[in-house]
Amino acid sequence: MLFFTQCFGAVLDLIHLRFQHYKAKRVFSAAGQLVCVVNPTHSLKYAPTRCAVAQTSTEQGGLPPCQHHEAVHDPQLVPCTCPLFSCPWEGHLEVVVSHLRQTHRINILQGAEIVFLATDMHLPAPTDWIIMHSCLGHQFLLVLRKQEKYKGHPQFFATMMLIGTQTQAENFTYRLELNRNQRRLKWEATPRSVLECIDSVISDGDCLVLNTSLAQLFADNGSLAIGIAITTSKVHNSEAEI
Amino acid sequence: MLFFTQCFGAVLDLIHLRFQHYKAKRVFSAAGQLVCVVNPTHSLKYAPTRCAVAQTSTEQGGLPPCQHHEAVHDPQLVPCTCPLFSCPWEGHLEVVVSHLRQTHRINILQGAEIVFLATDMHLPAPTDWIIMHSCLGHQFLLVLRKQEKYKGHPQFFATMMLIGTQTQAENFTYRLELNRNQRRLKWEATPRSVLECIDSVISDGDCLVLNTSLAQLFADNGSLAIGIAITTSKVHNSEAEI
Repeated sequence: MLFFTQCFGAVLDLIHLRFQHYKAKRVFSAAGQLVCVVNPTHSLKYAPTRCAVAQTSTEQGGLPPCQHHEAVHDPQLVPCTCPLFSCPWEGHLEVVVSHLRQTHRINILQGAEIVFLATDMHLPAPTDWIIMHSCLGHQFLLVLRKQEKYKGHPQFFATMMLIGTQTQAENFTYRLELNRNQRRLKWEATPRSVLECIDSVISDGDCLVLNTSLAQLFADNGSLAIGIAITTSKVHNSEAEI
Repeated sequence: MLFFTQCFGAVLDLIHLRFQHYKAKRVFSAAGQLVCVVNPTHSLKYAPTRCAVAQTSTEQGGLPPCQHHEAVHDPQLVPCTCPLFSCPWEGHLEVVVSHLRQTHRINILQGAEIVFLATDMHLPAPTDWIIMHSCLGHQFLLVLRKQEKYKGHPQFFATMMLIGTQTQAENFTYRLELNRNQRRLKWEATPRSVLECIDSVISDGDCLVLNTSLAQLFADNGSLAIGIAITTSKVHNSEAEI
């Protein structure tokens, strides 16, 4: 009897520890879907001219960021820079995930469908909310940015990038969905490669765009929930599913 | 034999006439879905302060536009103004459809699902593309507007309004969908009442909003195709389906 009581106690402890672990990571499951609470990243500074500057430095023998490197046979060995503009890091695709986790403390989530819950939407632009999303054998970077494209009128831009080459990215489709107050907004597209500049994707507006008033209609208590789903867009890639 | 030849000729003539009729109306069916080619309305001038002005005139005994009139028992007898800002017409809800058709020559289309094909997207702002859509026993007004909310940056705003009261509008859900170049954008919401100001819906941004670059990605040869679907959002209204 004592043995069973101890076993039961151990199970309870394990459940409690598991709960504490999830609470600490601020990742929890609600209504059967994984919800990730994402706090804003205040420290990122924007340098929209970095691509041009880097392009110039290439001519002087530097590493060429924001370009396709399909000539390298192993995609993991493609040279790339950190997709976050404040960071001077340069390396290869195979280590960019470790760099984002270790240096920028960006969480990585598993699962084909998750909910990205961005907190403190009221913070002034520029502000970023970033997570990594691991599914279908690849890692994706979701960036929600509050930015003043037109002075005095902040907008929200959300896009998903594959941590891989553009050729690999073309095998996937991502969906972002907002649903609240009898309104639903869905955006589906092919992810861009992390080798491209996030800034150019956002300045082109080739992403989910929300003005502040619409974002408020979708927000709940200052937080914006974005449902994310990734699927393979080509049949031959279906075996990559995990 | 001659009889059959004549019959066949008559059938061919009928098919030709039918084709000419559709061509003349610039409404045709493609891929099993009704496609309506909508030309821009250049003549509309915007007077965003009209609501405020009209509100003032109410105090002087004028007709109160841009307000709910739920106190009138028969929704058809609710007083209303023309939803197009250039027009001083005032009347009742039951005759606003005739006014829009006769005075503004706005086409009316039947069917729960249609494709709205707006031509000449390159025209400078402000420009409107407008049709009426008849389904589920009601008439709806679809407005696509190109407007410079931020000076020098035209955007496209699309919304659907019920030609009825707000209480009636709450029984429906409309969906606007853009689909091209491996991108899909869907907007679902409850239609507003035509008794409200279109301008306030657009200035609030509580509608489908597209910047010019995204509109170009969805456009084909200068035309933007928007799929439209209307459904009843309440069970008790399902018998209204036609």
